[in-house]
Amino acid sequence: MKTIRPYLLITNDDGVAAPGIHALVRELSKIAEIVVVAPDSEKSAVGHAITLSDPIRVSCFKKGNNWVGHAVSGTPSDCVKIAVGALLERHPDMVISGINLGSNAGINVIYSGTVSAATEGTILGIPSIAVSLATYTDPIFEPAARFAAKMVKIVLLRGLPERTLLNINVPNLPEDEIKGVRITRQGMANFAETFDKRIDPRNRVYYWMDGKKEELLMDDDVDDEAIKNGFISITPVKYDLTNYDVIDTLNNWLPEIEKR
Amino acid sequence: MKTIRPYLLITNDDGVAAPGIHALVRELSKIAEIVVVAPDSEKSAVGHAITLSDPIRVSCFKKGNNWVGHAVSGTPSDCVKIAVGALLERHPDMVISGINLGSNAGINVIYSGTVSAATEGTILGIPSIAVSLATYTDPIFEPAARFAAKMVKIVLLRGLPERTLLNINVPNLPEDEIKGVRITRQGMANFAETFDKRIDPRNRVYYWMDGKKEELLMDDDVDDEAIKNGFISITPVKYDLTNYDVIDTLNNWLPEIEKR
Repeated sequence: MKTIRPYLLITNDDGVAAPGIHALVRELSKIAEIVVVAPDSEKSAVGHAITLSDPIRVSCFKKGNNWVGHAVSGTPSDCVKIAVGALLERHPDMVISGINLGSNAGINVIYSGTVSAATEGTILGIPSIAVSLATYTDPIFEPAARFAAKMVKIVLLRGLPERTLLNINVPNLPEDEIKGVRITRQGMANFAETFDKRIDPRNRVYYWMDGKKEELLMDDDVDDEAIKNGFISITPVKYDLTNYDVIDTLNNWLPEIEKR
Repeated sequence: MKTIRPYLLITNDDGVAAPGIHALVRELSKIAEIVVVAPDSEKSAVGHAITLSDPIRVSCFKKGNNWVGHAVSGTPSDCVKIAVGALLERHPDMVISGINLGSNAGINVIYSGTVSAATEGTILGIPSIAVSLATYTDPIFEPAARFAAKMVKIVLLRGLPERTLLNINVPNLPEDEIKGVRITRQGMANFAETFDKRIDPRNRVYYWMDGKKEELLMDDDVDDEAIKNGFISITPVKYDLTNYDVIDTLNNWLPEIEKR
């Protein structure tokens, strides 16, 4: 008798050639059938962009002679949409986005292509998780990949709350130095942006955007703080952006708003 | 004695040449000092993208001999960031993003460059509103522009709740046919996406993404429903994506997650 293995859609925003996605592929192929549909180049900080004004191309990405997956000329959200809408033969059981090089915590969640791919999966009714590694240098992807595999097993068993994805950030530590797991909320420390003004060889002005996250005193249940303290952070993220807490306040404004 | 007029930053995602932003400029210049910093071309559905891998250029956009504003080679979020971080001499009192051609309601809010510009203003501590006109054909921008001016006056007086912007959608009707104003929540009707597969003249496959919003039975307090019924819709939108309602549930998962 043949057991049907779970079918996982793997994507990211660093592009199909990034090492982080290959760490996921290696680990998740042990427990499931997988398909990779990822951007053909780096698409960091693209937010929840989708491609409406340009055609989308899909090519075949190989590593040596081995087929790895579909490379898409679009954003992470495009990848999930086109995978489910045109490329895959059956509905995936989960979407796993990552492993991103760099954390997606705090205000970064808003700009994150990694998270947006998982959001897109959630919108399409597929339980989805985003996985990021909190470093830009000397990444150790394996512990994060193994943790992703563990979370996949749990989510396949339990499902996820409605309209909610899990945004997972793993500290860049060997497995035995990771302190544990914290359920967290999205931190609200801002970026302090700087614009570096330069002159190009043709004497035209241009700017580079740069910035540093503010260092705030944060509670233990904030994503960035958990990561900093060596914990894996799991934040439940939803895509209903309504601020329900202020609906009543705004309704009190109505008489003034409706005055001619 | 010289009165200091409020200072408003106007942006959009349809680009600096779009008629919607000019309707805003005309109306808001009557009540405030304004500055336009907008994308140099259409940037619809870019979500909350920011430009980190490319230099950002800023040029001067004129209409005839009149200086209109700064045209930025980036996304709506970039525009607000670079305006506040590099271009403007003083902090704006408000950010107004629009008037978008097409509604930004329901699931579209997530993909909306118009809303993301207002989100960016909010992140920077500036009270911000997004204004969209619910049509793609025969737009009548003036009622929406006048309503924006009215909301600007109210918001300047009262401020906005913390981390919250107002996402305003105006039906495409003459002023006296608009039924009133509703405070709404973001609808959750999905897009049903289609991918139109074509072959280019060089025999390569490409896809066009297209889609239609599902027609769901919706409550009166949902953004899309209010607009459909001829009301102006105002949704309070926040950028903390945490789903606080499920934190306890996930904490109950921890023993299982932490098992080795």
